[in-house]
Amino acid sequence: MANMNDVAKIAGVSRGTVSNYINGVKIKKESQKKVEQAIQELDYVPNQAARALKTQKSNYVVFILPTIWTPFFSELTYYLQLELNKCGLKMLLCNSQDDYIQELEYIRMAQEQKVTGIITISYSDITPYLTANLPIVSIERYFDDTVPFITSDNFGGGQLAAQKLQELGSQRLLMVVRKISHNLGLQERQNGFISYCQKAHMPFDVYLDEGNSAGFRARVFRFFENNYQANIPYDGIFAATDRYADYCYDALVQKTQWHLPEDIQLIGFDGSKSYQNEALKISTIRQPVAQIAELSVAELIKLGSDRKKSKKTKYILPITFLAAQTTREKRKKNEEKKRRQ
Amino acid sequence: MANMNDVAKIAGVSRGTVSNYINGVKIKKESQKKVEQAIQELDYVPNQAARALKTQKSNYVVFILPTIWTPFFSELTYYLQLELNKCGLKMLLCNSQDDYIQELEYIRMAQEQKVTGIITISYSDITPYLTANLPIVSIERYFDDTVPFITSDNFGGGQLAAQKLQELGSQRLLMVVRKISHNLGLQERQNGFISYCQKAHMPFDVYLDEGNSAGFRARVFRFFENNYQANIPYDGIFAATDRYADYCYDALVQKTQWHLPEDIQLIGFDGSKSYQNEALKISTIRQPVAQIAELSVAELIKLGSDRKKSKKTKYILPITFLAAQTTREKRKKNEEKKRRQ
Repeated sequence: MANMNDVAKIAGVSRGTVSNYINGVKIKKESQKKVEQAIQELDYVPNQAARALKTQKSNYVVFILPTIWTPFFSELTYYLQLELNKCGLKMLLCNSQDDYIQELEYIRMAQEQKVTGIITISYSDITPYLTANLPIVSIERYFDDTVPFITSDNFGGGQLAAQKLQELGSQRLLMVVRKISHNLGLQERQNGFISYCQKAHMPFDVYLDEGNSAGFRARVFRFFENNYQANIPYDGIFAATDRYADYCYDALVQKTQWHLPEDIQLIGFDGSKSYQNEALKISTIRQPVAQIAELSVAELIKLGSDRKKSKKTKYILPITFLAAQTTREKRKKNEEKKRRQ
Repeated sequence: MANMNDVAKIAGVSRGTVSNYINGVKIKKESQKKVEQAIQELDYVPNQAARALKTQKSNYVVFILPTIWTPFFSELTYYLQLELNKCGLKMLLCNSQDDYIQELEYIRMAQEQKVTGIITISYSDITPYLTANLPIVSIERYFDDTVPFITSDNFGGGQLAAQKLQELGSQRLLMVVRKISHNLGLQERQNGFISYCQKAHMPFDVYLDEGNSAGFRARVFRFFENNYQANIPYDGIFAATDRYADYCYDALVQKTQWHLPEDIQLIGFDGSKSYQNEALKISTIRQPVAQIAELSVAELIKLGSDRKKSKKTKYILPITFLAAQTTREKRKKNEEKKRRQ
């Protein structure tokens, strides 16, 4: 296989000139042309490891996320890779499985690899392991003022869900949520929901589950089975994620005789589809996923190699309400549309 | 920051010994202990770029897939990363967006990076770009005898879908599929479906769509709207993927007066959930995703650095039928269960 010396020989320039060209250092126009011709002629592939050693930076970005296997995370990964590609960066996907030790290993690896930076959705406390020379951008989790922090307006989303349920006719609201430590997003959705209900004098309650993730679906089923027999204690439900909303939907359909949205309305949170043109079933508060991805990459690049450079460190992006089949307005419109056809 | 010389000094060994230790070359037990202590004391982080240059292999595996944003691909990515982690390998996620040029760029990058290998689901013809020193494993797409090829039993899946529809009472079958060149998986599902119908003397037809992906949902809607007005031309539908099955389901519910599964039965293909404990709605042929991931990584490691080493190059993994709400048997059982409660 051709090496740098071969390129230099064919181009009639020094090895240093070829090296400069490859590492992005400016060389004379004339030399550049010769080097490019030689590279093409020899089909020379520069060794990235050697280049990384020289420039002390690789063009990888480590993306740490709890799991790839949810619509929200897979949509976010999709848009992040689009944005990284635009900037000539490659994604190292690190699926931490909510495991603290795994996350620290990924951060250690990022330091070893001298990557361009880290984008993370972490619910663990990795603050002590962050070093000044490793640029990092955080989605949804606030670390400290040196780490750019990008999040949806979770508080506003909680408010909006409660407001929509009320506007569309629900009278007693329930929020369904799990307790996950360090998950500021869920906490803020809850705060927003409670804040709206209190201001609007709406009766409400919060079903705050403290068990593990695996058993949550079964517990939601039990909850509805036990509490929705003879009457409807809450006729408007805000689930803190679309997955939780799915559980509520299935439980209501399979374990009770009530109908959505006539008897009970349901709103989730995230708005990600399982695939690009899936039809939405459950009404939801939509996170601006493409915008989160775009801003994360832009911030990482702005940081350059200095994590302390960040000035504005907090971005709270606007959410929107997407009406589907589990709230009344939309359903009515659809029925009218069908009648007209 | 500490370097290799500092480690050697503290450990009281030569720089070469430290280098050997870091690059996995065996050194004396006694020296090893000293080096490990020194590394710990200094919090020394070896430079991976330097190591890669030395060993001429990085511990990355490039995973090329058309998109991360479907349940099947995100589940496969999930399991692949689990398997790679077990072997101390890291995934470089390359989302080609079905773009041939992108795929070639990823392969070029893999060569530059001297990665451990490539695992790919590619529907493009990348054969001319494969080189002998780059181990590659292919999922679902057959290249040639030097490339290990791992796939679900798509032919058997097509047969099984037709057989189940017949056993559960359907009398005229339709397969809904898109024409995607080089997608052997879809082709084989179709071959299996037709083969079963012919042997069993079942009337059948294939709705083979030749348009683009983005407009497929709308065309499926139009198809059912136009053909399922007064009567039911086909009362058993096999959709070539769960996504297509989703389209059929929504179209039947929204555009016709017929009921699933009483009037029409529907079976999809993949069986991947949007998240780990989602409840399945549409009956389906399940691909053994975890097994595909496991075998892909095992084959890649077996290849080592020599792509030509592969002996057995073709693995066809068994599929299974998962009954959900769109075929009759399961529904009946559920109703009985509900009555008993």
